[in-house]
Amino acid sequence: MAPYRVVGTRPVRPDGLDKVTGRAQYGADIQLPGLVYGKVLRSAYPHARIKRIDASRALAHPGVVAVITGEDMPQLSSDRVAELGEGAIGLKHMSVLMLARDRVYFKGHPVAAVAATSPHVAEEALELIDVEYEPLPVVDDVLEAMRPDAPVLHEDLYTHEVGGARSSRPSNVAAHIQHLRGDIHQGFAQADVIVEREFRTQMVHQGYIEPQNATAWVSEDGRITIWTSTQGAFAVRDQVAEVLHIPAGRIRVIPLEIGGGFGGKIQVYLEPLAVLLSQKCGRPVKLVMNRAEVFQATGPGSPTYMRVKLGATRNGDIVAAEALFIYDAGAFPGSPVGAACLTGLSPYRIPHLKIDGYDVVTNKPRVQAYRAPGATTAAFAVETLIDELAERLGRDPVELRLQNAVEQGDRMTNGVAFNRIGFKEVLRAVLEHPHYRAPLPEGRHVGRGVACGFWQNWHGTSSVHLTFNPDGTVNLIEGSTDIGGSRASMAMIAAEELGLEVTDIFPVVADTANVGPNDVTGGSRVTYSTGVAVWKACQEAKAEMRKHAARLLEVEPDQVELVGTRWEVKGDPSRSVPAKRVAAALGRTNGAFVARGVSGGLQMAPGFGAHIADVEVDPETGKVQILRYTCFQDVGKAIHPSYVEGQMQGGAAQGIGWALSEEYVFDKGVMRNPTLLDYRIPTTVDLPLIECVLIEVPASDGPYGVRGVGEVPIIPPPATIANAIYRAVGVRLTELPMSPERVWRALQGEQEALAARPAAS
Amino acid sequence: MAPYRVVGTRPVRPDGLDKVTGRAQYGADIQLPGLVYGKVLRSAYPHARIKRIDASRALAHPGVVAVITGEDMPQLSSDRVAELGEGAIGLKHMSVLMLARDRVYFKGHPVAAVAATSPHVAEEALELIDVEYEPLPVVDDVLEAMRPDAPVLHEDLYTHEVGGARSSRPSNVAAHIQHLRGDIHQGFAQADVIVEREFRTQMVHQGYIEPQNATAWVSEDGRITIWTSTQGAFAVRDQVAEVLHIPAGRIRVIPLEIGGGFGGKIQVYLEPLAVLLSQKCGRPVKLVMNRAEVFQATGPGSPTYMRVKLGATRNGDIVAAEALFIYDAGAFPGSPVGAACLTGLSPYRIPHLKIDGYDVVTNKPRVQAYRAPGATTAAFAVETLIDELAERLGRDPVELRLQNAVEQGDRMTNGVAFNRIGFKEVLRAVLEHPHYRAPLPEGRHVGRGVACGFWQNWHGTSSVHLTFNPDGTVNLIEGSTDIGGSRASMAMIAAEELGLEVTDIFPVVADTANVGPNDVTGGSRVTYSTGVAVWKACQEAKAEMRKHAARLLEVEPDQVELVGTRWEVKGDPSRSVPAKRVAAALGRTNGAFVARGVSGGLQMAPGFGAHIADVEVDPETGKVQILRYTCFQDVGKAIHPSYVEGQMQGGAAQGIGWALSEEYVFDKGVMRNPTLLDYRIPTTVDLPLIECVLIEVPASDGPYGVRGVGEVPIIPPPATIANAIYRAVGVRLTELPMSPERVWRALQGEQEALAARPAAS
Repeated sequence: MAPYRVVGTRPVRPDGLDKVTGRAQYGADIQLPGLVYGKVLRSAYPHARIKRIDASRALAHPGVVAVITGEDMPQLSSDRVAELGEGAIGLKHMSVLMLARDRVYFKGHPVAAVAATSPHVAEEALELIDVEYEPLPVVDDVLEAMRPDAPVLHEDLYTHEVGGARSSRPSNVAAHIQHLRGDIHQGFAQADVIVEREFRTQMVHQGYIEPQNATAWVSEDGRITIWTSTQGAFAVRDQVAEVLHIPAGRIRVIPLEIGGGFGGKIQVYLEPLAVLLSQKCGRPVKLVMNRAEVFQATGPGSPTYMRVKLGATRNGDIVAAEALFIYDAGAFPGSPVGAACLTGLSPYRIPHLKIDGYDVVTNKPRVQAYRAPGATTAAFAVETLIDELAERLGRDPVELRLQNAVEQGDRMTNGVAFNRIGFKEVLRAVLEHPHYRAPLPEGRHVGRGVACGFWQNWHGTSSVHLTFNPDGTVNLIEGSTDIGGSRASMAMIAAEELGLEVTDIFPVVADTANVGPNDVTGGSRVTYSTGVAVWKACQEAKAEMRKHAARLLEVEPDQVELVGTRWEVKGDPSRSVPAKRVAAALGRTNGAFVARGVSGGLQMAPGFGAHIADVEVDPETGKVQILRYTCFQDVGKAIHPSYVEGQMQGGAAQGIGWALSEEYVFDKGVMRNPTLLDYRIPTTVDLPLIECVLIEVPASDGPYGVRGVGEVPIIPPPATIANAIYRAVGVRLTELPMSPERVWRALQGEQEALAARPAAS
Repeated sequence: MAPYRVVGTRPVRPDGLDKVTGRAQYGADIQLPGLVYGKVLRSAYPHARIKRIDASRALAHPGVVAVITGEDMPQLSSDRVAELGEGAIGLKHMSVLMLARDRVYFKGHPVAAVAATSPHVAEEALELIDVEYEPLPVVDDVLEAMRPDAPVLHEDLYTHEVGGARSSRPSNVAAHIQHLRGDIHQGFAQADVIVEREFRTQMVHQGYIEPQNATAWVSEDGRITIWTSTQGAFAVRDQVAEVLHIPAGRIRVIPLEIGGGFGGKIQVYLEPLAVLLSQKCGRPVKLVMNRAEVFQATGPGSPTYMRVKLGATRNGDIVAAEALFIYDAGAFPGSPVGAACLTGLSPYRIPHLKIDGYDVVTNKPRVQAYRAPGATTAAFAVETLIDELAERLGRDPVELRLQNAVEQGDRMTNGVAFNRIGFKEVLRAVLEHPHYRAPLPEGRHVGRGVACGFWQNWHGTSSVHLTFNPDGTVNLIEGSTDIGGSRASMAMIAAEELGLEVTDIFPVVADTANVGPNDVTGGSRVTYSTGVAVWKACQEAKAEMRKHAARLLEVEPDQVELVGTRWEVKGDPSRSVPAKRVAAALGRTNGAFVARGVSGGLQMAPGFGAHIADVEVDPETGKVQILRYTCFQDVGKAIHPSYVEGQMQGGAAQGIGWALSEEYVFDKGVMRNPTLLDYRIPTTVDLPLIECVLIEVPASDGPYGVRGVGEVPIIPPPATIANAIYRAVGVRLTELPMSPERVWRALQGEQEALAARPAAS
C-alpha cells in the first residue's frame, strides 16, 4: 500500500478551469470605477544626461490627468542616508531604476509617466513631453566596463571586496566575491590532467507570457491599494514602501493571477509609478507594459564572461578548480554572481579551489533573477569542462561525476555542509536508465551529452490559515502566489493531513492584509516552505478535529485516530465518523475554529539534477536538432508528480532555449530584437517530448521529504547540449546561444576567434 | 487616571474618509469583465395563481442572455424532504419567496428574472415575458387571516403550538407561543388597579439608504463568487447554499460596503437569482433593486395587533400581566412575535403572567428583522399601560418602574435568569437628570413622556485574526461587516490591548474564504462578540510580543510587562521598548506570526434603555412636535462613545419615525406609497437634537464590560411619545403611526372606533 492517500496522486488543479476558460483575473483585467491609464516615457538612449524635461504640453493635452518625472520620486533625507549607511546607495539606485533623475542608464529607462482617460491618450501625451538629452559613452561589455579607463556609470558606486573592504575610487565593479579552499597551486600541481576554457553567454529574458502590470489607488488619507501580477505581494508592498518612503502597513497589495514570473516578477517597476500618478490625480491608475517594454525595461538574466580551469588526477579525482565569473548586472549592481560562485562547483568534492566572482554594471537593462539565477551559465562552463576531463581521462562522464559527487556532510564552496542530498542517486539513475544505455540514434552527426545542475533551494517564511465550511470543506488561505500549481500541491497536503479529498480543499491566494507575512514565490521554496505552513496548520486543525470526533464517538480524544478519511475509535474501527463530518463541525459558527501555520527557520533542501540529450547537428547550416531529452532529478517527494514533471519539462525547455536560440542582440546598448518573433523562444516544433525521471531522496526537514523542484531543471541544458554537440561533431561550443551561425562557425574553426576577446585581469 | 488608554476615546473611524469621498465600494459599484445586468419581473397581484409563463419573446430579444422562472429553482427531493422533516416546509417557502412557482403571494413577488447586456435591455425584456394570472382573494389583516373561514395561503402550513403540537388542518397561523408564570386569575384577583387596551401597528420599513444588490459569477466547475452588501457574508453563503442545494464551501461571498441594514440585509433576495442567471449565461450578473422594489419585495417590520392587560396593587406592585401579540409575518411564516413575547414584559418582576404570541401569514411582503425585531411594538403596548397604571395609582411613572424593575437573578418571561443588568441604574439616572426634573417647556399643549426598552442582545460567534506589518502596524481581519462603525471599535480594542495607537490598526472586513465562520452583524452582537474575538487574538499576540520584547530587552519573558505603549522591564521602567517596535518584529518574515481569536459560548449581555420626550401637540392639525428628547441606556462600556451615541440617536430617530409618520399604506394588499416621498422617514427638520446619557454597568462576560447598544434605542420612542401626547392633550393613542390624522381623530373622540375592530379569540 502506498504510504500516502493523496500525496503522489495527480488530481486536476483547482485553478485549472478558470484559467482555460478565461475567467481567471490577471493583473491587466482589473477594472475600477474612474480608472485611468498610465504610460511610461522611456529613454531612447542607453546612456545620456537629461538636461531638461518639460511636461507642460502633455499636461495641457485633453484627457491627461497626471504627469510624473524623477522630480516626483521622494529623495532620501540626509538623516535617512546616515541611518541606512551603504544601504542608501542601493535604495537610491532602486529609486532611479523606477524613474530616472538627471541621467538615463539604459535604453528603456523610465523618464516620465502619464495618466490619462484612455491608454491611447496617454500614449499621445508621451510624445508631448519634451526631453533634452546629452548622450554619454555607452559601456556595453563587462570586460570593457572593468578596464581602469572605462567611463564610470555611477559616481557613488565603489567595489565591495570579500570581507567588506571598499575600493578607493568609483568603479563599474560593484562587488568581488571570493571562495577559497585548500591551496590552489598545490592542487593543480597534483593534477595529471588540466582543462581550461573561457565562456561567454548573452543576456536572456525569462519570457513570461504576461507583461508586467500594476494598478494603484491612493485614498485621501494616503492609504494605498495595489493590484498586480507578482511573485510576492509582500515583496511588492515592501519595495513600494521603501522606494516611496511610505510605512508598509499603509499599503495593501492584492495579487492577481500571474502569467509566469521565473524570477522576473519580484522587482517592482510600474507599481511606484502607479502610486505616484494616483496620488496626483486621486483616481485609480493602471499601467500595462507592451512586449518591447518587457524586453527592454524589466530585468533579464545576466550576460556573463567566465573562465574555468579544472585539474584531475589520473584516477579521476578532481583535485583543483579555479573559476572566474564576471556577471553583467546591467545598469545597477545586483547580478546573481554569488549564486554562480556557490552552485557551479559545489556538486563536486574538490580539495583545492579558488573562485572569483565580479558584479559589473553596464548600460543595459538591470538584470533580475531568472530561474536558478546565475547557476545555468556557471554550470555551462563547469559541466562542459567536466565532460572534457572525462574525455581526456577516457572515462564515462557520468561515472567520473559519481566518483567526485558530493554527499551529506561534504561542503559547498562557501563552506556550508550539505544535509541529506540525492546527487549520487540521480547519477546512478542516469547510469541505469535506458536512454543512457541505448545506442545512439541513427544519423551521421549524432551525439549524446550529459550534464548536471545543482540549486540550493530556498525556504523562507510562509503563512497559512485554514477555515472550515459547514459542508466539511476547508478554505486554505495562503500568501504564496500560485505560479507553478502550488494551489494543487497545498490542497493535496491539507487533504492528506485532514483525511479529506483534495476537492474538499479550496485554496485561496490572499492579499497582504488577509494573511500573515509571506516570502515570494521563488527560490523553489513554495512547495517546501508553504507546504510546511500548511502541514503545521493541519496539525493544529487535527488536534481540534480529534476533540470533535471524540465527542461524536462518545470517547475521550486520545481514544480516536484518523485512519484514511475517517476518525476511528482505536482498536474498534467499526466505530468511526467521516473526517468530513468532523470538519463540518468546525465550519458551523457554534464550533468555529481557525487553524494557522507559519513556516520559518527550516533547513535547506538542496536539489540536484542531470540531463541527457541526444542531438543531431547539420554541418551545412549549424542547426542542432534535439532527438531525445531526459531529465533526472532528486525531487525529495513529488506531491503532485504531474506538476513536478511540468516544472522539469518547463525548466528544460527554457534551458534549451538559452542553449540554442535565445539572446538579446545588442548594438551599442540598443536591443535590436525586442519582439517574440525575433527573440527566439523555443516552440513545440523545436522541442522533443522531454522525459522525466523522478528520484525521491527525502529532504532532511519538512513533511514527506519534499524538496523544491522549479529551478534545478533549467541548469543542465546548455552544458548537456554543448557536450552532445561535441560528441556529434567534435567541436566544443563555449558561447551561448549555440545558434546555427555559432555552430557553423565553430565547425569552420572560427569559434576561438569569437571567444578570444581580452580576458579580465 | 482613566483605566483605559484608547477605550472610551473618540478617534476618527478608519473607513470614514473613503466613505465621505465616494471611494468606498458598495455593492452596486462592482465591475467585472463581461458583466451583464439582471432585472426581476414581479407580480402586480398580491395573491394569484400563475397559469402560464412564456419567456420566449424575452429570450429572443437582442441583448438578452438568460431568463429564469420558478422552474429553474431546484426542487427538494423526497429524500431531502424526509431528512429535513418540518424544516423542509421552511426551506420550500424560502425558495418560493425567491422566485414564485405556481402562485404569487404578495405584490412584488418575483416571477421571473432576465439578464441582458444592459439594465435597460433587461427592463425592456421584462415586458416581453407573458404571464397569465388567476387572481385569488387577498388576505391583508391578521385578524381576518385567523378566522376559521379565511382563505388559506399555504396548504402545507399548519399551526405549531408551544411544545410542538400541530394543528389538524392547514392554517394561516404558523405558530403559537405561550409563556406562563404563576396563576393569572389569582394575579388579577390580587390587583387593585387593572388597565387593558388593544393596540395596532402598521408595516414599516428599515429605510436603509442603499437598495439591495447582488452580483454572482459561476465558474465552469460550479464554484460561485457573490459580491453583495449584506449584514453577514456567511449568512448569504449558507442561504444560497440551502435554496440552491449547493454545498456551502463552493460559494465564496465577498461583502462590499453596506449602506444600512437594520436587520433587513440578512435575508437573501437577489443572490440566488444572480447565481441562477450566471449559471445559465456563464457571465457575471449584477442585480440592483430600485426603491419601489425595496419597499415591496424585501422584508419590512411586522404589523401587529396586540392586547395587553396589567394589574397592580395599591402600593404599586405589578402582580399580573396578560398579553396577546399577533404579529403579521407577511406572505410566509417568520414574524418576530417570539421576541415580542420575551421583551415586552421581561423588564418587570411580575409574579403572574400569561403571554400568547401568534405568527400569522397574510398577502404582504414577508417581514424580516427590523432593529430589535418585535420589541418596539410590544413595548409600545406595555409601556403605554405602565404609564396608565402610574397615572391611576397617582405615582411617578419612573418611580413605579423602578419599584418593579428587574435586576440580576430575576427571570425573563421565558424563565431564564438575568445576569448583571443595569435597568435600575438607567431609571435612577432618568430620575436625577435635568431633563426629567426640569419644568415643562412653555406651551399650551405640552407633555412629557417616558418609556423603557429592553433587548436581550445576542452574542454568537465571530472570527478574527491579526497579521503584523514590518512598520509595526497591524491588520485586523474580521468577518463582521461594518454597519455602525465596528471597524473603529475593533481597532480600538486591538490598540488598547497591544499597546499601539488606533491609527496603527487596519481593520479589514474579509470574505467568507478569508476568515473563520462569523455570524451576522445583527442582534447588537458585534461590539460584544467580535470584540471578544479581537481581545482573544490580542492576548495570543501579546504572548508572542512578550517573548520578542524580552529578547530585545535581554531579560526573560516573565520579567517584562506592557505599560501603556511600551514593554518595560518590571521594576525598571527605564529599560523599555515601544510596543510598535515589538509589533514590527512580528511583521517581518523571519518572525512572522498570525494571531487569531474566535468568540462563542458567551453569556448574554442584556441592554436596557429609557427615553424622555417633551412634545407639543397642535390640536388643530394633530401634528406632534418633539421639543426635547433624551435617551438613557446601559451600554456596559462605551468603546467609542460617539458611535454609541450615534446608535442611540439613530435608533431613537427610527423609533420616532415609526411613532409618528412611517407606515405602509395598503389598499387590498397593494402598497400605495412605495417611495421615500410618500413613505415619511423623519428628516432633520422633524427631529430635535437627541441627547444621550450613557450609563455603564459592566456586563457579566467579555472585556471591559461592553454590551451591545444598537437595538435598545429604537424600542422606547413610540410609547415615550404616546405617553407624552397623553400628558399634553389627555388622549391615549393606541395605533401607530400617531400621524396628524390619527391624533386629530383621537382628539375628536374617534380613536376608539378606529381600534375597535374584532379581537382575536
